[in-house]
Amino acid sequence: MNKNSSNIMALTPNTSNKRETVCIFGTGDFGRALGHKMIQCGYPVVYGSRSTHISNLIPKDAEVLSHAEAAQKAAIIIIAIQRQHYNFLTPLAEILHGKVLVDISNNLKLNQYPESNAEYLAQLLPGSRVVKAFNTVSAWALQSGTLDASRQVFVCGDDVEAKQMVMNIVRALGLTPLDKGSLLAAQEIENYPLQLFPMWKFPIFLSLGLTAFFFFYCLALDVIYTYIYEKNNFSFFIAITIPNRVCPVMALILLALVYLPGIFAAIIQLYRGTKYRRFPDWLDKWMLCRKQLGLIALAFASLHVVFSLVTPMRAFASWRTSKGIISQALNNKTEPLNNTNAWISDCYLALGILGFFLFVLLGITSLPSVSNNVNWREFRFVQSKLGYLALIFCTAHTLVYGGKWFLSPSAYKWYLPNIYMLSLVIPCAVLVVKFVLIFPCVDKPLTQIRQGWERNPKHSE
Amino acid sequence: MNKNSSNIMALTPNTSNKRETVCIFGTGDFGRALGHKMIQCGYPVVYGSRSTHISNLIPKDAEVLSHAEAAQKAAIIIIAIQRQHYNFLTPLAEILHGKVLVDISNNLKLNQYPESNAEYLAQLLPGSRVVKAFNTVSAWALQSGTLDASRQVFVCGDDVEAKQMVMNIVRALGLTPLDKGSLLAAQEIENYPLQLFPMWKFPIFLSLGLTAFFFFYCLALDVIYTYIYEKNNFSFFIAITIPNRVCPVMALILLALVYLPGIFAAIIQLYRGTKYRRFPDWLDKWMLCRKQLGLIALAFASLHVVFSLVTPMRAFASWRTSKGIISQALNNKTEPLNNTNAWISDCYLALGILGFFLFVLLGITSLPSVSNNVNWREFRFVQSKLGYLALIFCTAHTLVYGGKWFLSPSAYKWYLPNIYMLSLVIPCAVLVVKFVLIFPCVDKPLTQIRQGWERNPKHSE
Amino acid sequence: MNKNSSNIMALTPNTSNKRETVCIFGTGDFGRALGHKMIQCGYPVVYGSRSTHISNLIPKDAEVLSHAEAAQKAAIIIIAIQRQHYNFLTPLAEILHGKVLVDISNNLKLNQYPESNAEYLAQLLPGSRVVKAFNTVSAWALQSGTLDASRQVFVCGDDVEAKQMVMNIVRALGLTPLDKGSLLAAQEIENYPLQLFPMWKFPIFLSLGLTAFFFFYCLALDVIYTYIYEKNNFSFFIAITIPNRVCPVMALILLALVYLPGIFAAIIQLYRGTKYRRFPDWLDKWMLCRKQLGLIALAFASLHVVFSLVTPMRAFASWRTSKGIISQALNNKTEPLNNTNAWISDCYLALGILGFFLFVLLGITSLPSVSNNVNWREFRFVQSKLGYLALIFCTAHTLVYGGKWFLSPSAYKWYLPNIYMLSLVIPCAVLVVKFVLIFPCVDKPLTQIRQGWERNPKHSE
Repeated sequence: MNKNSSNIMALTPNTSNKRETVCIFGTGDFGRALGHKMIQCGYPVVYGSRSTHISNLIPKDAEVLSHAEAAQKAAIIIIAIQRQHYNFLTPLAEILHGKVLVDISNNLKLNQYPESNAEYLAQLLPGSRVVKAFNTVSAWALQSGTLDASRQVFVCGDDVEAKQMVMNIVRALGLTPLDKGSLLAAQEIENYPLQLFPMWKFPIFLSLGLTAFFFFYCLALDVIYTYIYEKNNFSFFIAITIPNRVCPVMALILLALVYLPGIFAAIIQLYRGTKYRRFPDWLDKWMLCRKQLGLIALAFASLHVVFSLVTPMRAFASWRTSKGIISQALNNKTEPLNNTNAWISDCYLALGILGFFLFVLLGITSLPSVSNNVNWREFRFVQSKLGYLALIFCTAHTLVYGGKWFLSPSAYKWYLPNIYMLSLVIPCAVLVVKFVLIFPCVDKPLTQIRQGWERNPKHSE
Repeated sequence: MNKNSSNIMALTPNTSNKRETVCIFGTGDFGRALGHKMIQCGYPVVYGSRSTHISNLIPKDAEVLSHAEAAQKAAIIIIAIQRQHYNFLTPLAEILHGKVLVDISNNLKLNQYPESNAEYLAQLLPGSRVVKAFNTVSAWALQSGTLDASRQVFVCGDDVEAKQMVMNIVRALGLTPLDKGSLLAAQEIENYPLQLFPMWKFPIFLSLGLTAFFFFYCLALDVIYTYIYEKNNFSFFIAITIPNRVCPVMALILLALVYLPGIFAAIIQLYRGTKYRRFPDWLDKWMLCRKQLGLIALAFASLHVVFSLVTPMRAFASWRTSKGIISQALNNKTEPLNNTNAWISDCYLALGILGFFLFVLLGITSLPSVSNNVNWREFRFVQSKLGYLALIFCTAHTLVYGGKWFLSPSAYKWYLPNIYMLSLVIPCAVLVVKFVLIFPCVDKPLTQIRQGWERNPKHSE
Repeated sequence: MNKNSSNIMALTPNTSNKRETVCIFGTGDFGRALGHKMIQCGYPVVYGSRSTHISNLIPKDAEVLSHAEAAQKAAIIIIAIQRQHYNFLTPLAEILHGKVLVDISNNLKLNQYPESNAEYLAQLLPGSRVVKAFNTVSAWALQSGTLDASRQVFVCGDDVEAKQMVMNIVRALGLTPLDKGSLLAAQEIENYPLQLFPMWKFPIFLSLGLTAFFFFYCLALDVIYTYIYEKNNFSFFIAITIPNRVCPVMALILLALVYLPGIFAAIIQLYRGTKYRRFPDWLDKWMLCRKQLGLIALAFASLHVVFSLVTPMRAFASWRTSKGIISQALNNKTEPLNNTNAWISDCYLALGILGFFLFVLLGITSLPSVSNNVNWREFRFVQSKLGYLALIFCTAHTLVYGGKWFLSPSAYKWYLPNIYMLSLVIPCAVLVVKFVLIFPCVDKPLTQIRQGWERNPKHSE
């Protein structure tokens, strides 16, 4: 019993005498990559293949046999072939009886087949124990050993012991198995690697659209208007000034859109007098992407902060400062400190800082590892109480900043309002309605409804 | 076997033929919400109720039977009734024998009863297999499908197989089961959803109190004193200037308070000559909330950074700059660069930046997902070595900033020291004592004590 | 059955009648700490010791017996003795038959013995069920109760039931067990607590070396050159100006070094015509530390951002501004806004902000809890697409910033290029080669190779 020591990264390669043999059906790319990795981790690997000649493609320490022979050598058989060819396994049903079959297949699109590949395999071979695993791992990642991404391997299956055996292999390869329950979860697991941020699509398209609209709105009012009527070429505003007008507007609107569906839901529940009827579909979808909306709002807010902070470094800013100071110096007078201006400038800065601070706090709380460590009551406290506080601060920040221009006609170029006025519409509406909703006469029936009370029990679902 | 494809969000709804029937006792709010969700996920649900008439309240696909009949239809029975009514289950003991009973009840306050509800249920029905689960999930969250918060469901129970069955249901509902061990953990699980940041209470109240004290101290010295003796109205200092004095002071003091209990512990251990006697209660509690103190300190430090960075945007700052430059211009002279001032200003900025950088690093390391990926040795290295380095940098930052005023009488308005002087007391004390503790003649016995050595073995606990 | 209620922190201490007795062999530091904690959590503890006299050192509620007597009292025996003394257990083989032995030992250095301590124990006592656990927990942490760090306890063993029993104890102590599979994982678990950021060593040393080089390069060109040829003492540049030149250069170079190995890998694969041959060792190691390189680059970039933002607060900066304004005022003229300068300054700021924003996004995605929630396709999208976009923005930021000086002879002090010119070499090379690699005529064969195709199948491994 003489094992040579291994390095830290890989598990002991000389312990193959301890690991049980694994059989792999199919010598395609993923089958080979998995075989390589298993041999590295000390598993004897035997390939089942139609032709036993193409041996130079597969790992050199692996045996290649016919399917039937290979299957007899191992208790675990990894099915690395495509779903279309599963049929050829039916003649082997007897040999595969009682064996653990690991389905690692993926489809090309979401819900391609009525049932998942693993369930289809289980139907074809009712005597064998099918486990779904490894389909979320990339062959390239297994091959190159650079598993920077998720090391989680979703595993599901109806046989607990079989699942345990597969999970042990997963662990031995340096990955983390995650039990997803019975084989019914296979469909979800097969859809998983095909997704590309499904929950983010709507929020991202919405914010791209709004950003484009506000960008051209600002371009018209700040650059084109100034060029036409004041003959000033401020085209360089495109780089910083306009983005720094669009970002806070987007942040405020998206933050308000996070809280708007909750307002709608409350109104609908009050109107219906029950919580047991489903919301309209658009509201359901909106509520499900609130987290994403909030995080995009936070991104815009962060950009706004950085764009604002670099202002003193801009050539335009230092030119404007110099011009002001030199004109005072040439006129031989020093302007006294305007106390009102000092108050306004300090107030809107302080409000913005506090709003952004709470916003970042909300963002940190929505990190998966943090939100897993708070209970429902704490999560509600942070996301609801602190979230509304952030919205109040940010709305006040915008109001104080732009307040003095509301009544000034020069702020309405081409009779259009400035964009910070537009940005205030939704947040103010949300805050006003929310203020109404927390009045006891409205809050009390709403709380009752949310605890299961129904105004008119006949209208059940 | 013809299953229609499902969408990604929900598991296949037409697979009810595959899911085992679940019985729910009680048609209250949570019982109904859970039933809805289970039917959505393909479980046949049967309700056990005293009256089988109130069928319009419960999900329409569910059956409603008497308790005894319903219990006979399923292997898993969810007890969605309150603890006070558990007694009525005793006549059903025979039917419930061997069944899996899922206790989902919550209490109204911490440790309301001597034993947990789940243990009480297990005592009432010794023949059945009790599992505690689902009590940390909110009915509203189940109903609305918006499980933004933690998807973790704590599960505990003495019967492994019963626990496994319940965990499979949890997974099928799209939640993540977390095995908490035997039924003895039920008390902890029942207390969990009632907590509201229990570890944060003391640190938050402490920092609120200190903040209020320093705020009024600054208000007196900076605004009221200036108004009385210099006739200047600097009331707008309340918005930014004073917060930006209080924040760094709070950050420094709280950071020092993170390391102070470790110093006390070392002194106590050196004095007692053993580590096997418990620390005084106040020290134990203090040590348990060090992480929270550190994170609040980080919040104050972040606010200080942003408050400082917005300085050039303030009306007051630009007025002061203009005044200085104009007076130079009117006097027709340019002041040369003061090399000492340049050194001091650059040094305290650089020290502050490095201190804050290390501070943020400590904050990131304390994220649960990051600290789970470092071992004890690495964690100690970051939290102890880098933490002290951060404390040294931040203390030096404050010393360099305020150093020149220590000996100037004008800094002592009303004979009171400026607050940055107050803020230096604890950090300097911590650093000096820590410096003494790392001397070999002190460090060696301390290390021995911490490895289990005792100076006077008779004084055991 | 009268249990008094417990506090939240500890599990019920009066439930000792429910917990099974645990035996601990060895009264060393960790044995005592573990015993204390177990008694606190309600486990009856019996110590097995050579001498039963040293009872004042061990917890007072624990029994002390001879090894044989103690072992008979419990089903679980914790082996808290050193590997060198495992031999004395062989005479007890009969008593220990079928018992669960928990190996908690650690070694002094990595891979000290050919086989892990747990496997050695299993060989000595083939009849008992060995489980590896608790070795990653610190005695000091158990003792003081301040488990701020990871609460994860790695558990491995060949007997599933034994492992389950140990994991229940782990849970009862308030820790989180993590099943690492069979006893073959013991070596890895024993090496784990001995590591100190193994993956970070090379990236950190590399960046320290480069930082030192660039620091002295800047010192020579900016401080010493200026002092010799212009007689200006800018020694205070050491605090902020030079760090703020070194940081962005380091960030850009390290970010490029993250993407360089991928370029090398693609070229090697294209040249070889197969992906089934291993990369050279240096490339493998380089690819494995890309994440760490990227995070260090992000740290430098963050420092650069803060160093730049504090510029207006520096005495030097305000002196320079005053000087410029006063000279204009004294000459009685106002310089007009230079539109080209405004464009350049705004562009490089905007590019830098966007680059940094994407960089931070990449950093957030590499947090373990976030990367566990994205699939492989999403991870590739973020790390590859957004990563290259960040590299493009940052390179463009540097190019626009320094572009005007490339052709000016005054930028080449002592005929040496400025460091931002040096910093552009690797990023530009990476971007140019990457640009070539995405041409269809190059991309197509590369994609085929990465999907398993081989140009010359004879050259297999």
